[in-house]
Amino acid sequence: MPITTCVFDAYGTLFDVNAAAAEAAKDPAYPGLAAVWPALASDWRRKQLEYTWLRAVADRHCDFWQVTQDGLDWALEAQGLEDPALRARLLALYRHLPTYPEVPAMLASLKARGLATAILSNGSPDMLGAAVASAGIAKQLDAVLSVESVGIFKPHARVYDLVGTHFGCAADQVLFVSANGWDAAGAAGYGFRTIWVNRAGAPLDRLYAQPHHTLPDLAPVPELV
Amino acid sequence: MPITTCVFDAYGTLFDVNAAAAEAAKDPAYPGLAAVWPALASDWRRKQLEYTWLRAVADRHCDFWQVTQDGLDWALEAQGLEDPALRARLLALYRHLPTYPEVPAMLASLKARGLATAILSNGSPDMLGAAVASAGIAKQLDAVLSVESVGIFKPHARVYDLVGTHFGCAADQVLFVSANGWDAAGAAGYGFRTIWVNRAGAPLDRLYAQPHHTLPDLAPVPELV
Repeated sequence: MPITTCVFDAYGTLFDVNAAAAEAAKDPAYPGLAAVWPALASDWRRKQLEYTWLRAVADRHCDFWQVTQDGLDWALEAQGLEDPALRARLLALYRHLPTYPEVPAMLASLKARGLATAILSNGSPDMLGAAVASAGIAKQLDAVLSVESVGIFKPHARVYDLVGTHFGCAADQVLFVSANGWDAAGAAGYGFRTIWVNRAGAPLDRLYAQPHHTLPDLAPVPELV
Repeated sequence: MPITTCVFDAYGTLFDVNAAAAEAAKDPAYPGLAAVWPALASDWRRKQLEYTWLRAVADRHCDFWQVTQDGLDWALEAQGLEDPALRARLLALYRHLPTYPEVPAMLASLKARGLATAILSNGSPDMLGAAVASAGIAKQLDAVLSVESVGIFKPHARVYDLVGTHFGCAADQVLFVSANGWDAAGAAGYGFRTIWVNRAGAPLDRLYAQPHHTLPDLAPVPELV
């Protein structure tokens, strides 16, 4: 079936999740951050994701804003940086993450080709609303779909079901794009056509399905529709 | 209720999962391993666990020997060490991991106090059988319970259910011991009394439940019964 609908993961795919720690590290108010912000950002992201998976397995859902705070608290303690002002600053930055530079033109190209576009994210609706608005990409997105409407995190099938429910399309009419290898594998296993955006040159995740394409960034996505 | 049954996680708790890479790194046949074995061991363990959680969320179970191989393949590629002989050596070592030094005396002390003892592990029955036999601790364990009998990984409640099903005890009669913070949290959320063995001095995981006790190693476990 031809692709009708391009669906993007949000955090790490459209929005640069490392930007919060990188930006705070420029602030002279937090001199301890300059040397360790990459490790802080990595731990924050790792724990945030681990907590989504663990909560999904144990049937203990909470929203992504909670696990984002929980992951940050773990990461700050690991670096000995338990400073309430720094915590508040990082969380505020996380609500307004920048997109990767190629995102606006890539989305505009998909819309010019007549494709439906959407976000499908673990993020809570208010987080996603704030991020999309501050990035100025709302007009290029036909839908912003959050796991909150099904109460479980990716890669549960109920999350990927949201696309067909919203757009009325079949799974093989969907091109799903994620920079998270596990999310790309999950979407491929579900039945979407899938692109893994592998900015870091990481090894392919050894899971139950593999993405159909791998790209170094989002710019070539319209060519694969 | 008084504790009747002490249940231990296996990998990382009784058995030192880093020992495989550490041992292989002593072998002059693998000179590339000496400098990077800690990173290899860390990636291997991280991916192995991630794959258990992702497969549980997506309802794509396979056994732990498969995810152990999958995690190793990711980790070897990340280090540029894709050598079939090294892969085979590391997997062979993984089947005969040493226990932490305090394990035999700690188990003997629990048995001397009349407690039932068991392993409850993600490991497949044949992996656990090989590990217990080569460590010489079979006589100190009343049961070796594997997730394979329920077909999903920790921290799903069906896994923790195995203890009550086997021993006929209530959840609050079980003392569950794990060096994996997420497993200790999962067991505490399930209703077991729980000890987290925090050898590395890591931050507490911010999850839906907390362990009742934290210890630096397994030696004091009998004092907490």
